[in-house]
Amino acid sequence: MPERGLLIVFSGPSGVGKGTVRAAIFESSQHQFEYSVSMTTRAQRPDEVDGKDYFFTTREDFEEKIKSGQMLEYAEYVGNYYGTPLEYVNQTLDQGKDVFLEIEVQGALQVKEKVPDGVFIFLTPPDLDELRERLSGRGTDSLDVINERMAKAREEIKLMSEYDYAVVNDEVSLAVARVKKIVEAEHFRVDRVISRYQTMLDVATQTVK
Amino acid sequence: MPERGLLIVFSGPSGVGKGTVRAAIFESSQHQFEYSVSMTTRAQRPDEVDGKDYFFTTREDFEEKIKSGQMLEYAEYVGNYYGTPLEYVNQTLDQGKDVFLEIEVQGALQVKEKVPDGVFIFLTPPDLDELRERLSGRGTDSLDVINERMAKAREEIKLMSEYDYAVVNDEVSLAVARVKKIVEAEHFRVDRVISRYQTMLDVATQTVK
Repeated sequence: MPERGLLIVFSGPSGVGKGTVRAAIFESSQHQFEYSVSMTTRAQRPDEVDGKDYFFTTREDFEEKIKSGQMLEYAEYVGNYYGTPLEYVNQTLDQGKDVFLEIEVQGALQVKEKVPDGVFIFLTPPDLDELRERLSGRGTDSLDVINERMAKAREEIKLMSEYDYAVVNDEVSLAVARVKKIVEAEHFRVDRVISRYQTMLDVATQTVK
Repeated sequence: MPERGLLIVFSGPSGVGKGTVRAAIFESSQHQFEYSVSMTTRAQRPDEVDGKDYFFTTREDFEEKIKSGQMLEYAEYVGNYYGTPLEYVNQTLDQGKDVFLEIEVQGALQVKEKVPDGVFIFLTPPDLDELRERLSGRGTDSLDVINERMAKAREEIKLMSEYDYAVVNDEVSLAVARVKKIVEAEHFRVDRVISRYQTMLDVATQTVK
């Protein structure tokens, strides 16, 4: 059986640019992650591909999956469910591949309860002014909506301490490089690799008896 | 005051090649470590420079430093003391620089008791046959001496689990790259960097009251 892969949980406040950084990681040539496709009950948009952008499903099916413990995490947002199907994640980890989850802060904390040895990375804005600019920059939302998002983002930033790592998104390429380094380094953590050396350790223990 | 540097404790069994990997790290152009020069009571060799290879001192002075708590770690080996003066390490960390200690396994465990938030990296041989070859390769020692070193190395390998990371020394350049990645990633650990974001978090807490 191959060594189990790492579950990488990549999160951060609304507007920080999680999706952009994640896309850049997956576009880069040497990434070795499997992207965990989320499931949602919201309507499929014309440019979206089922099974690539999301798994699109019904409320009934989603709620059934919640009840039967088939969701690693989920949240309801603006009347729709979003979540991570557990089966795909487990199968991929068992194949020795790292799974990359890009999810909201609340979902990440649900995952932490279930998979405490995941690698939890928080993407943070350089400062709140920059975050407000990014949230306003979309240009499509009213001041009230932006203020509401800022309030939510502030609450989310306070949860940074629950994560293992914090990476600042000052520049996408730099943030990408940081995330990759963190994952590479995590592969050398003793509790993850000690089984590789178990044979050597067993021999060592026997021989010195 | 600058953010405090990281204390990197690099260790591994006798013969694994700690010194070679450490030298390669310090020869590489982008390293950002300060090397902690050890203190010893053994005689200075003709090619060694005091204050560069070691701080050479007397047994009396060394024992006085142990008594007064001025050694971060020390060991006696073949009748001589070897250890790490605490003052230099603390001053360098306070300047925001990372300090790199290359020490024996027993010394590393002493440091772990005193500085639990250090980064403890264990350099391991690919397997014990390879280690024996390296220990024999020096060509200057009897079989008895080699067997004794192997027995000691086996005991040391069993202590791998006390470390944070394990890096295999299959090829020096690869081992160097792994160690550097680990240190870079450690700089993003939340408990180390959260103070950077404290201002943002304080503002966040105040504003949402």
